[in-house]
Amino acid sequence: MNILVIGGGGMVGVKLINRLAKDGKLGGTPISKIIRHDVVLSPPPPASAFPIETLIGDLSTPGEAEKLVVLKPDVIFHLAAIVSGEAEADFEKGYRINLDGTRYLFEAIRKAGGGYKPKVIFTSSIAVFGAPFPEAIPDEFFNTPLTSYGTQKTICELLLADYSRRGFFDGVGLRFPTICVRPGKPNLAASGFFSNIIREPLAGQEAVLPVPEDVRHWHASPRAAVGFLIHAATMDTAALGARRNVTLPGVSCTVGEQIEALRKVAGDRVVARIKREPNETIMKIVAGWPRNFEARRGRELGFKAENSFEEIIRVHIEDELGGKIA
Amino acid sequence: MNILVIGGGGMVGVKLINRLAKDGKLGGTPISKIIRHDVVLSPPPPASAFPIETLIGDLSTPGEAEKLVVLKPDVIFHLAAIVSGEAEADFEKGYRINLDGTRYLFEAIRKAGGGYKPKVIFTSSIAVFGAPFPEAIPDEFFNTPLTSYGTQKTICELLLADYSRRGFFDGVGLRFPTICVRPGKPNLAASGFFSNIIREPLAGQEAVLPVPEDVRHWHASPRAAVGFLIHAATMDTAALGARRNVTLPGVSCTVGEQIEALRKVAGDRVVARIKREPNETIMKIVAGWPRNFEARRGRELGFKAENSFEEIIRVHIEDELGGKIA
Repeated sequence: MNILVIGGGGMVGVKLINRLAKDGKLGGTPISKIIRHDVVLSPPPPASAFPIETLIGDLSTPGEAEKLVVLKPDVIFHLAAIVSGEAEADFEKGYRINLDGTRYLFEAIRKAGGGYKPKVIFTSSIAVFGAPFPEAIPDEFFNTPLTSYGTQKTICELLLADYSRRGFFDGVGLRFPTICVRPGKPNLAASGFFSNIIREPLAGQEAVLPVPEDVRHWHASPRAAVGFLIHAATMDTAALGARRNVTLPGVSCTVGEQIEALRKVAGDRVVARIKREPNETIMKIVAGWPRNFEARRGRELGFKAENSFEEIIRVHIEDELGGKIA
Repeated sequence: MNILVIGGGGMVGVKLINRLAKDGKLGGTPISKIIRHDVVLSPPPPASAFPIETLIGDLSTPGEAEKLVVLKPDVIFHLAAIVSGEAEADFEKGYRINLDGTRYLFEAIRKAGGGYKPKVIFTSSIAVFGAPFPEAIPDEFFNTPLTSYGTQKTICELLLADYSRRGFFDGVGLRFPTICVRPGKPNLAASGFFSNIIREPLAGQEAVLPVPEDVRHWHASPRAAVGFLIHAATMDTAALGARRNVTLPGVSCTVGEQIEALRKVAGDRVVARIKREPNETIMKIVAGWPRNFEARRGRELGFKAENSFEEIIRVHIEDELGGKIA
């Protein structure tokens, strides 16, 4: 089995490839090769029993998708995107990368011919929803995104469903929760604080909390994210019918509950490293974000997230900190 | 006020232009010019107190949208599309005309600059919904189209909302009910029989009913369709907020109720011209179509349809038959 990971240099892409390299197979089938594709791919590939090839390129450049599809991967993970803030700041770049790039990929697959029909796993986002919404968003709630990023993800979901219905490929769209605790350095994304207030204190650093403790949001760990992708690639897609896009399970909790979970896992000394610095701009952005989902269908389809925020913190300590707290 | 009607040669486009020519104004503002655009425009323009210009062209040809936008119309009615059956039969043509054409238009407006911000009225369709759905679809129900046409319309709705949110234009998307009674010759569209079984008997002709009488569907007259467009162009769009796409009101009735309404208006002699010829293919297609909508928001926003199917028949007799039944 050949696997293509587009956006293989991103946080989730790297973790997915590490997991596949360790497993050596996907859904019981031995992996013969992984092709990882991204605009930059700095980390060397992990040790593996099969070759991992690296291709550098931009999916939104005409012709790039064809170069990938000609390799006839059996499974394509499409994780490449620019983030919400950048897509909002640069309208043309957002549509080019997040919409046109994906459409080029889908078109290249459709035109490949010869009975080629790969599995395509596409990462969408809870940004396909926009306020106002009910406290817990049901599975049949409509998509009224309030960002260009959310609009682009919703459009790609629709294309994925139509191309799958037409039989051009076998697609699954995954509406990721906010991934938390995100490893690495603090970044300027408006959602960054959800991870910063856990990751930095655990590493002995101070972190800024820009919103009140009653802000509620929807989370899953990076480990759960990799699990979602692998489950989507190995599940029987007949269970999806024509509805190819799935709101995934996650943990709904307030910032206050995040902090209490951190206290339980790591104690007052670590929690004391969170500094409250209210930021009106971030509060306003966050007010338009989903807080909770029913996600019944995602669970029924076999997707699994953590059951508590405490569990999310323990996953971070295990996977990123070698079990140690500073 | 300058008005552009893209798809001005279609059934609704012609009726809209006739109405505007008769009114001489839109929302109290005198009309200075109408530009009608379509791939073919056979009927001559109606008599009017202002010039009606005719432009022949295909919106999906690169550069065509720019030629229209340079004329700086204050209001753009975008009615151009290929129908559901054709978009399903020809995948590439459907995406080119129904998606790319619309995106070219939106992009040409965005790039026009100089503070240009027209009102854009876009005709969408109840094909943005796909079975299974509740008996009456609520306003917040999700879009899971089961045709490429429905997919293309949903994508254009999302673009319209994002371009409006960004301030590039002031857009309103209208999810038209099935327009009934459609004037003209019977056509091969799967939905054609809803109109055929009324129009043909009223004109002294036989008509074929291919489905059982318990099939329920969602209708509005061509006169109501023109009313929707004019209301959208003249309403205060602040009432829409970020949710720019509206499920319009209509009449939900079964084929049996359509026939009883015809009997009430025109008698047994006319109803006897309906021949039952069950068609499995059409039954299967129709089974995936919406039957009824709550459409509360559309009504609250001031959109008006008929209150009964009898009223729809009477509108047809007045507008198309000069009040006479054969």
